[in-house]
Amino acid sequence: MVKIGIVGAAGYTGYELVSMFARHAAAEIVFATSSSNAGQRMSDIYACPFDTPLIDPANASLDSADVVFLCTPHGASATWAKQVLGAGARCIDLSADLRIRDLRVYEKWYQTHTAPELLPRAVYGLTEIYRDAVAGADLVANPGCYPTGPILGLAPLLRAGIVRGDRIIIDAASGVSGAGATPSATVHFVSVHDNYSAYKPGHTHRHVPEIEQELSAAAGTPWRIVFTPHLLPVSRGILSTIYVDLDPAWDLAHILRALEEAYAGETFVHVLPAGKLASLAHVVNTNRCAISVVSAGAPGEWIIVTALDNLVKGAAGQALQNMNVMFGLEETMGLIA
Amino acid sequence: MVKIGIVGAAGYTGYELVSMFARHAAAEIVFATSSSNAGQRMSDIYACPFDTPLIDPANASLDSADVVFLCTPHGASATWAKQVLGAGARCIDLSADLRIRDLRVYEKWYQTHTAPELLPRAVYGLTEIYRDAVAGADLVANPGCYPTGPILGLAPLLRAGIVRGDRIIIDAASGVSGAGATPSATVHFVSVHDNYSAYKPGHTHRHVPEIEQELSAAAGTPWRIVFTPHLLPVSRGILSTIYVDLDPAWDLAHILRALEEAYAGETFVHVLPAGKLASLAHVVNTNRCAISVVSAGAPGEWIIVTALDNLVKGAAGQALQNMNVMFGLEETMGLIA
Amino acid sequence: MVKIGIVGAAGYTGYELVSMFARHAAAEIVFATSSSNAGQRMSDIYACPFDTPLIDPANASLDSADVVFLCTPHGASATWAKQVLGAGARCIDLSADLRIRDLRVYEKWYQTHTAPELLPRAVYGLTEIYRDAVAGADLVANPGCYPTGPILGLAPLLRAGIVRGDRIIIDAASGVSGAGATPSATVHFVSVHDNYSAYKPGHTHRHVPEIEQELSAAAGTPWRIVFTPHLLPVSRGILSTIYVDLDPAWDLAHILRALEEAYAGETFVHVLPAGKLASLAHVVNTNRCAISVVSAGAPGEWIIVTALDNLVKGAAGQALQNMNVMFGLEETMGLIA
Amino acid sequence: MVKIGIVGAAGYTGYELVSMFARHAAAEIVFATSSSNAGQRMSDIYACPFDTPLIDPANASLDSADVVFLCTPHGASATWAKQVLGAGARCIDLSADLRIRDLRVYEKWYQTHTAPELLPRAVYGLTEIYRDAVAGADLVANPGCYPTGPILGLAPLLRAGIVRGDRIIIDAASGVSGAGATPSATVHFVSVHDNYSAYKPGHTHRHVPEIEQELSAAAGTPWRIVFTPHLLPVSRGILSTIYVDLDPAWDLAHILRALEEAYAGETFVHVLPAGKLASLAHVVNTNRCAISVVSAGAPGEWIIVTALDNLVKGAAGQALQNMNVMFGLEETMGLIA
Repeated sequence: MVKIGIVGAAGYTGYELVSMFARHAAAEIVFATSSSNAGQRMSDIYACPFDTPLIDPANASLDSADVVFLCTPHGASATWAKQVLGAGARCIDLSADLRIRDLRVYEKWYQTHTAPELLPRAVYGLTEIYRDAVAGADLVANPGCYPTGPILGLAPLLRAGIVRGDRIIIDAASGVSGAGATPSATVHFVSVHDNYSAYKPGHTHRHVPEIEQELSAAAGTPWRIVFTPHLLPVSRGILSTIYVDLDPAWDLAHILRALEEAYAGETFVHVLPAGKLASLAHVVNTNRCAISVVSAGAPGEWIIVTALDNLVKGAAGQALQNMNVMFGLEETMGLIA
Repeated sequence: MVKIGIVGAAGYTGYELVSMFARHAAAEIVFATSSSNAGQRMSDIYACPFDTPLIDPANASLDSADVVFLCTPHGASATWAKQVLGAGARCIDLSADLRIRDLRVYEKWYQTHTAPELLPRAVYGLTEIYRDAVAGADLVANPGCYPTGPILGLAPLLRAGIVRGDRIIIDAASGVSGAGATPSATVHFVSVHDNYSAYKPGHTHRHVPEIEQELSAAAGTPWRIVFTPHLLPVSRGILSTIYVDLDPAWDLAHILRALEEAYAGETFVHVLPAGKLASLAHVVNTNRCAISVVSAGAPGEWIIVTALDNLVKGAAGQALQNMNVMFGLEETMGLIA
Repeated sequence: MVKIGIVGAAGYTGYELVSMFARHAAAEIVFATSSSNAGQRMSDIYACPFDTPLIDPANASLDSADVVFLCTPHGASATWAKQVLGAGARCIDLSADLRIRDLRVYEKWYQTHTAPELLPRAVYGLTEIYRDAVAGADLVANPGCYPTGPILGLAPLLRAGIVRGDRIIIDAASGVSGAGATPSATVHFVSVHDNYSAYKPGHTHRHVPEIEQELSAAAGTPWRIVFTPHLLPVSRGILSTIYVDLDPAWDLAHILRALEEAYAGETFVHVLPAGKLASLAHVVNTNRCAISVVSAGAPGEWIIVTALDNLVKGAAGQALQNMNVMFGLEETMGLIA
Repeated sequence: MVKIGIVGAAGYTGYELVSMFARHAAAEIVFATSSSNAGQRMSDIYACPFDTPLIDPANASLDSADVVFLCTPHGASATWAKQVLGAGARCIDLSADLRIRDLRVYEKWYQTHTAPELLPRAVYGLTEIYRDAVAGADLVANPGCYPTGPILGLAPLLRAGIVRGDRIIIDAASGVSGAGATPSATVHFVSVHDNYSAYKPGHTHRHVPEIEQELSAAAGTPWRIVFTPHLLPVSRGILSTIYVDLDPAWDLAHILRALEEAYAGETFVHVLPAGKLASLAHVVNTNRCAISVVSAGAPGEWIIVTALDNLVKGAAGQALQNMNVMFGLEETMGLIA
């Protein structure tokens, strides 16, 4: 049994991990921490039968775990990662601290980095793209919820060198769990229900540099995006509607074939056949990412629609998928495909 | 023009009042206060075109208003009411402070009363029942959101002396705006959406003594209720499903006739014909209260279903209705019937 | 591998079964039928990766299956059950056709029975109550969605002989999937969203005789209920708020202990501790039934709140649970506890 | 009193008109037709207190009305319009039949036109743009729900000649009432709730030629759009997120000033100040259109977000606004601003 520690377990991704490990045959939680809910059990915070005790982070025996999941905010995570690695455990960080390879970019979009020496050691955990590196990693930077879909949908086309134009427009919509469990006016039921609104539009959301980093890595040249997230009146799910120009010589069959080949044998990436569009219904409560392609109406103009569950493939599910890879387990254990 | 003051205008009932006065032909807001949002405009807090400035309560010129609406919490409201009356304005209090006529009952369910001397002066503002008293009042205690429907549905039957048994069971469900605008884990979108839950069940919710007071007043003898509120994943509306035993000699036509006669000529109370059940769709965004009756299956056993919008007929709309009555205006002004 | 047939697989319960069997390690679907969608695959109807072909019912080789699940409407199911048993397969019927043991009661509430000779052979598949009989059955009548919660919540108290009064009031609320997948004005998004409404109130819903049958069986004497279902603006889940009088000598601890003892060792029935109330959040997307108890405010007056997912513990999940029992498999296989 | 006829009154736009006329001081409904619900009253179909009888269309006395609103499908509307005008009444058509000025374009996107001779007589009823023509019209083609927002948001910029590039990308999301009241699998509550999906993407939705016609008219040169509508899990509202390149010499203040000047004095068009983004919450249940502008991150790249209620400013509200203009009434009568 792989021994699991979870730091910051009282948030949505921590709860999702606890739910998944309740169904995982080869792992067991040895500790779960919460600074604000220490002394309670998971079932005191969420309507669930999980009696997992939440302990004070100061009391966590990091060395009792084989791997520690960090569900802590950026800024705090890098410091925790250093301690976890120092205690001899492997580490999967769900924050942004170790996702951005260029320290200057991180510090421009976030803040002063608390452990920049870890950056070269961290593997970006988009499993389908970096599986080999994840397998050998002791430190994984789990991708952001918004980046995962567009990167999976665009990387094969960027690698093929067929993307044209000077920018890619990503119009995305997320369920409210993406904003976290902390109460605020923004996530009050009455604010969100019956509403739909854009926020941090254009080039201002912190997932922009992460997406640009990975699209550029796939292309081998820098790529710029325009990115407009919207808040949906649903709890879970992200749909990204991506406007992209491609080499006009490529038709729909050609484009779909490139995606299918890129994800042949993948359990969790579903390239939909021509005529179908990805929707939240394809993915919610599963670790799937659905990818679909349709003409935008003129030669070379395309719309790529991707969908995933922000808490699963966009966070805890992908983290567990990475753990399964790191420990040589079946990649689907504990996950719904 | 009636000059309006609103204290505590940044909450949902305050916003509702501001929206309604924007459509009211014979009233104008002279001040609106908010302790936490002073210096902002309504359009800074809510997505709306209302530029009403929110001022510090300390700066409110109470005597510039003909009537002041108190959207302040219980405890604070009674003190405000004293000041408003002292300044020569009339006062409509949307809190519970002046609804309970028996001081001991108030202090058992709430707290030490801050202005018990006002209790004899306050008129309980359930307009259809106390219209004459409201017309002459300078102090109105606007009813609670849960009580209004069951009282309107049951009072004519209690007055007729046909209610049997030892208790009335009221199973009610409310939209989230009933919990107020203050952020908390309870009203987080993810907590409420796709959920349905009971809270403060049995004989524990603070609207219990208010309902019992008015049912007892209608009957002329004490009545006891069992009351289970539930939280619905909607923003607005309260449905009450009421289980009551009546004199078996009364059939459906007889019962409906008693209700229709009680509310003949009323614009806002709709007694539905036999075969129709009140639902939130009948009432949301209006000042209506819909009342329906159906057999519970055995002689003398009945189900009364009432519906209203908790922010309108259950709060701000009824407050405005009372104001229209107090100032001799057409009772429907600014309201949707 | 247990070989599975599904008749009427294109509805919600059929889809739920297909989803669960995709995760079941010891069963495989050998056929799935749909009269209206024959020739399509499950992924043509629902947003999912399941390529299960839907065949014309006339082409189903009943004898190729070890067990056939009937997701057909009442009336049609009994005839199918006869054919399935005749072909040598076992049968789990999700319709009402074989739930009511008294033919006259069935024919009063439903219609002329098409296979009354099967009634003595059918086992009512509320697993926690009839597990031994289910284990030896070749014909299981899977319980209705509404009955499962109230029966589980009340049976131990009725068996203990402590229920008082002349009726039990069950106020219930269900998600829209309970109404089935057939489009109608009633299930149009705009009709349900932001709405909440009662339907078939009192003693008119077809689940009334099923609930009364099982409550009476537990008590050993006839029991009558008042039952008011409501339509909730959610897709899944049923909450039942039950008003019941008990022997005043029993306090909360005593009542809870009776329930805990009744369900000791059960994986899927969760008796919540004092102070907690069951909600949809406890159960949706799982095979759980949550049960909670709270005082109604006066001695001997209690409120029991039960919750379950109408498509899982209220239909397909309980059917699979029964199948696991019938075939000697681990009872939790394919199910989320 | 203006005498009103409504043809096709049982759909959502017909119901919306009936609701609005209940609050209109200078108009009264003289007939409302429904082919499928003839003989019923509005309150039989919708949860409302409106007893408006629905008559068979064959029994409508067109000449008893001063103006007839056509809530009939495209194809049928043009034929009705001919009859209405022939009977001497004015006509406001809410279908697409008379919106497209170029017959060939109409017949390419829709079908053979049944009354092409009316096209030159019809005024496109986007009130803020064509008010003078509407005032003198006897035949108004009321705009589509999707087109109204993008046209209002872009027309002033196109007229100013500052739009650059070869296409404008409009990513839009609509509430379910936009799909009409006819039941189908697509609008089943369970299909829409918790879901979000794109449909008719790129250059395939029938509102594309209407939007292109009006953008081109404003610009004086042909404009092409890419348009992706999405289905939102809400009942009402359309948000359009528009990606457009403008002359890099124009900064935000300059752009906003152009919009503010274009809509100075308009009651229903709200240009939001810098830093605010339009959302459904700004507009639902009102006749407002909110317009906002924000940088897309690079010089000359902008995002315009517009919002309106598809049933009000996007349909019945704008139709009533046009009627008020046509009859010389105050433009806001019966409408919420």
